[in-house]
Amino acid sequence: MKPWEKNIKRVVPYVPGEQPNHKDMIKLNTNENPYPPAPGVKRALQNLDFDRLRLYPDPTIGLLVEELARFYQLEKDQVFVGVGSDDVLAMAFMAFFNSKKPVLFPDITYSFYPVWCDLFHIPYETIGLTDDFRIQKEDYYKENGGIIIANPNAPTGIYENLTTLEDILRHNQDVIVIIDEAYIDFAGRSALELINHYDNLIVVQTFSKSRSMAGMRIGYAMGNPKLIKALNDVKYSFNSYTMNTTSIIAGVEAVKDDEYFRECITKIISTREKTEEALISMGFHFPKSGANFIFASHPNMPAKEILNALREKHIYVRYFNLPRIDNYLRISIGTNEEMKQLIECLKELFIDSAK
Amino acid sequence: MKPWEKNIKRVVPYVPGEQPNHKDMIKLNTNENPYPPAPGVKRALQNLDFDRLRLYPDPTIGLLVEELARFYQLEKDQVFVGVGSDDVLAMAFMAFFNSKKPVLFPDITYSFYPVWCDLFHIPYETIGLTDDFRIQKEDYYKENGGIIIANPNAPTGIYENLTTLEDILRHNQDVIVIIDEAYIDFAGRSALELINHYDNLIVVQTFSKSRSMAGMRIGYAMGNPKLIKALNDVKYSFNSYTMNTTSIIAGVEAVKDDEYFRECITKIISTREKTEEALISMGFHFPKSGANFIFASHPNMPAKEILNALREKHIYVRYFNLPRIDNYLRISIGTNEEMKQLIECLKELFIDSAK
Repeated sequence: MKPWEKNIKRVVPYVPGEQPNHKDMIKLNTNENPYPPAPGVKRALQNLDFDRLRLYPDPTIGLLVEELARFYQLEKDQVFVGVGSDDVLAMAFMAFFNSKKPVLFPDITYSFYPVWCDLFHIPYETIGLTDDFRIQKEDYYKENGGIIIANPNAPTGIYENLTTLEDILRHNQDVIVIIDEAYIDFAGRSALELINHYDNLIVVQTFSKSRSMAGMRIGYAMGNPKLIKALNDVKYSFNSYTMNTTSIIAGVEAVKDDEYFRECITKIISTREKTEEALISMGFHFPKSGANFIFASHPNMPAKEILNALREKHIYVRYFNLPRIDNYLRISIGTNEEMKQLIECLKELFIDSAK
Repeated sequence: MKPWEKNIKRVVPYVPGEQPNHKDMIKLNTNENPYPPAPGVKRALQNLDFDRLRLYPDPTIGLLVEELARFYQLEKDQVFVGVGSDDVLAMAFMAFFNSKKPVLFPDITYSFYPVWCDLFHIPYETIGLTDDFRIQKEDYYKENGGIIIANPNAPTGIYENLTTLEDILRHNQDVIVIIDEAYIDFAGRSALELINHYDNLIVVQTFSKSRSMAGMRIGYAMGNPKLIKALNDVKYSFNSYTMNTTSIIAGVEAVKDDEYFRECITKIISTREKTEEALISMGFHFPKSGANFIFASHPNMPAKEILNALREKHIYVRYFNLPRIDNYLRISIGTNEEMKQLIECLKELFIDSAK
């Protein structure tokens, strides 16, 4: 080892989900939306004044902040925009989790939370979910340095009622509580309606799922102006011009087209319900999904075996080799046609294995 | 103050340069390129398969890494790509400056360096430049936790010879040395030719200046594969999908068009030389520029006064209210026509003031 190697940060990096690239594959492994972005996004990018790309983008991301504020009926100083919700959450961990007491989150949740804690030297404690992957709110009624809860949770897809979250908030008014709502548009009421009652609450959402724009990297946080200012201060200490011009323009158009947005969500929820029925009839069990994926397990065949059998047919789903969930598959909701093919493949698999 | 406010990180954020937006303004304040990106960039974005935006981008940014490796005759594992060189540098500070000894950099340089040190709790020591803003290499021959040098330096524009940098490297083989070359294409030989001789050297460049793409946010680092892996490890611990699909595609096209790239640089250098002559004939003095800007001062009129007079004519240049440089203006090189208007404005100003 050379002496300079001693100065290199040792981190165990997050491993992103596989991004296969087969022709005719069915990609149900990273919770992407099967429908394209709103038509206005294409128009706006094609009509872009390309000469503008030589100029720095607006560091305040003003147009998109404004459009989101309008959409959610907030003030502009209640909205922060970042490069995907991962960027927003990383900034939030840096900005808000600076206590010596541990930050709390469930033992089964988005796997990036402990990675950020390690990266920024934030102490943390994971709280066990119940056997059926539910949050027990009383577990969070103790001293801590902050709380983060994904709702709906990943990768279980379970949506907890706002009353559960509000009870947790009511018991934790001295720390900052982040609700990570990447999948909320497929679920139910957002914690957003609580931000005017709890000034220590930050709600984080993304364009990657319900708005079909994973490729553009847009995430945002909403909360009281003091919290938003703290996020901006950290952002400006890190990289002033985080979001490029094309994302700002595309993001605005996506938010404007409310009708298209609701149409896509309705289609995905309807496909999810049909898929749930088909899976149940085949003996799968899973928690009720509030997301654009189903977290399913089968009593007669190990998840890993199903994963590999599907992969051979170029159908990709996600498997986590982790305690308590290593017999589950996370299956993203694609189009009706894609899910039909998945179900047919699974049927064949179970018929073959029964022979 | 509410109890939760105690947990908020206190930072003094970097203040980005003003982004005025007047019609018919002449914007010479943020070192943007006056020419549009390569024509292939426009074509690639217009022909983009917009449906792809619903999918996550390639987290390895493979296409762009490959194209940069080809351009600079490197291996792919010697190239790291990030969201602007600010993003690359922030990751590099996190990845490489983990010693208890201070990181060294000049007292007059890119103002983000101390901001990142504060954000990541990195001890640092600034080393005074000489009275004519030059580096004295011997000042860096002492124990330290790493070195970062901008070459050409910002905001002076001074380019130091590679032999000076190599002498500093030779005396600092036990720490990581970053050479920040945002403006190198307007200057001379890059430190890139040293990376195969010094495995502790990282060279950082950007698409924001010479490649006319500040609006797309693309920066990159080159160095030995161990350093590049460390950067990727930190990146993947922070945000796996940093660069959006449009930037990846646009970046590839910009690198491919070598002829357009060299043409733009030649034009800017020629305009810089003409502008330098005109400024000298008016009594301005400035260090010889190796960048797309001139760092100029006039013995008969305070910089701030010139700044404000130009602003009234909607010509924007950059002023730093900082010790030792508060009588200088940083003037970006625009088109010939823009610089002609600047010079005419300045002439009028000096004639008026002489009356």
